Amino acid sequence: MSTDISSDPGSYPISDRNRVKRLHERGSYDRAAVHAILDAGMLCHVAYVIDGQPYCTPTLYWREGDTLYWHGSSASRMLRHLKEGIAANLTVSHLDGLVLARSGFNHSANYRSAMCFGTARIVEDPDEKAAALRAVVDRFYPDRSASLRPITAQEIKATTVIGMAIDQASAKIRAKGVADEEEDYGHPVWAGVLPIRTIIGEEQPCPRLLPEIARPEELAIYRAGETLDQALRDAQRAYEAAS
Amino acid sequence: MSTDISSDPGSYPISDRNRVKRLHERGSYDRAAVHAILDAGMLCHVAYVIDGQPYCTPTLYWREGDTLYWHGSSASRMLRHLKEGIAANLTVSHLDGLVLARSGFNHSANYRSAMCFGTARIVEDPDEKAAALRAVVDRFYPDRSASLRPITAQEIKATTVIGMAIDQASAKIRAKGVADEEEDYGHPVWAGVLPIRTIIGEEQPCPRLLPEIARPEELAIYRAGETLDQALRDAQRAYEAAS
Repeated sequence: MSTDISSDPGSYPISDRNRVKRLHERGSYDRAAVHAILDAGMLCHVAYVIDGQPYCTPTLYWREGDTLYWHGSSASRMLRHLKEGIAANLTVSHLDGLVLARSGFNHSANYRSAMCFGTARIVEDPDEKAAALRAVVDRFYPDRSASLRPITAQEIKATTVIGMAIDQASAKIRAKGVADEEEDYGHPVWAGVLPIRTIIGEEQPCPRLLPEIARPEELAIYRAGETLDQALRDAQRAYEAAS
Repeated sequence: MSTDISSDPGSYPISDRNRVKRLHERGSYDRAAVHAILDAGMLCHVAYVIDGQPYCTPTLYWREGDTLYWHGSSASRMLRHLKEGIAANLTVSHLDGLVLARSGFNHSANYRSAMCFGTARIVEDPDEKAAALRAVVDRFYPDRSASLRPITAQEIKATTVIGMAIDQASAKIRAKGVADEEEDYGHPVWAGVLPIRTIIGEEQPCPRLLPEIARPEELAIYRAGETLDQALRDAQRAYEAAS
């Protein structure tokens, strides 16, 4: 039950901080499971503490190996406290379905979530920062940064990149149908799953697009009707192949 | 800039805790704006602190007036610290689009997020708890709780309901097209918005459904192809009308 698998390079170390307490049969500490959830998303929530007050901040993030990155401006609340490094918990969650059971107690949701713990710090090294500012574009849109108007020194200065090596993590997944008590299956009420998908819609080109500019091949993975999950996984794979 | 509108009943009071720091032109403290974001979601992230460590926990939530509720089992990490009340920040975010600009710096996302601050506490009052355990079903699926196998004393005991009156909140929204620097519009690269929508799929009835049971009218708002946003807003409206 509480086997320490911290010597397994395929798993994150387990302690009281990341152990899945509730419905622990849904939990995993497997690196590949955590990365799969992270790579299917771009919006995370980061918890941190300032003067005893918890904050839960939504932000875009990306992953390089076992390090998570996100960014902000020098005006943001968190950044002023990051010089020394600050304990943080970055969580990514995907809602996959509504589960309607025959009792209120067994109503549930299908989901995938990953909680990642570490110390968030400002990326000060100029090379790491420059690489991160390319990655925030190219991780989502393969090879795009080279086609953009180049970043300026002022923009680099105005952007703060935050990095957090994942010290510990856990994944939690529910992906199944209705799970009622055996004696409840005869209760005469509709039960089932309503699947939820997050999809990409039809592109809305900028009205000021130059007339000769077509949508580039690099964006083919974001075709209308595709799930965002799949597009982001494909983009991550393309990014890793190019790195 | 820092007008205190705390005497305005339509707005949440503002302090350093909830003031929108970064891109503050996107911020609002308006109750209706915050509620609209909350009512379009069912998955939130709650930040809280235990022994100095921040946690960011995903959970389902619902709103009754200016109080937010969520629930868990007595085994969960947070609940053991809730007896006295614990400072929390519950955040709900919707990703609405990817914004591809002509510079890396102006790449962005369209989103709606609401950050709500307060003190989370266990709902101990039996009447409030019983009402909450009906609400967690009926807020999402109008009138459904009456059709279910009734909740048992053991289930009530095994479920902990957490409530948090919203003391302060802020909403932050980006909902527009590409915003490039004026001198960048001539740069020859594709720019535009890729809209993102979270939609309901085709129902998956429980394989053990009794043969005479049809999907009830109460679930009409969750029709395949509808956005989850709209269905949840409709469900909240129906729930409030029935209360």
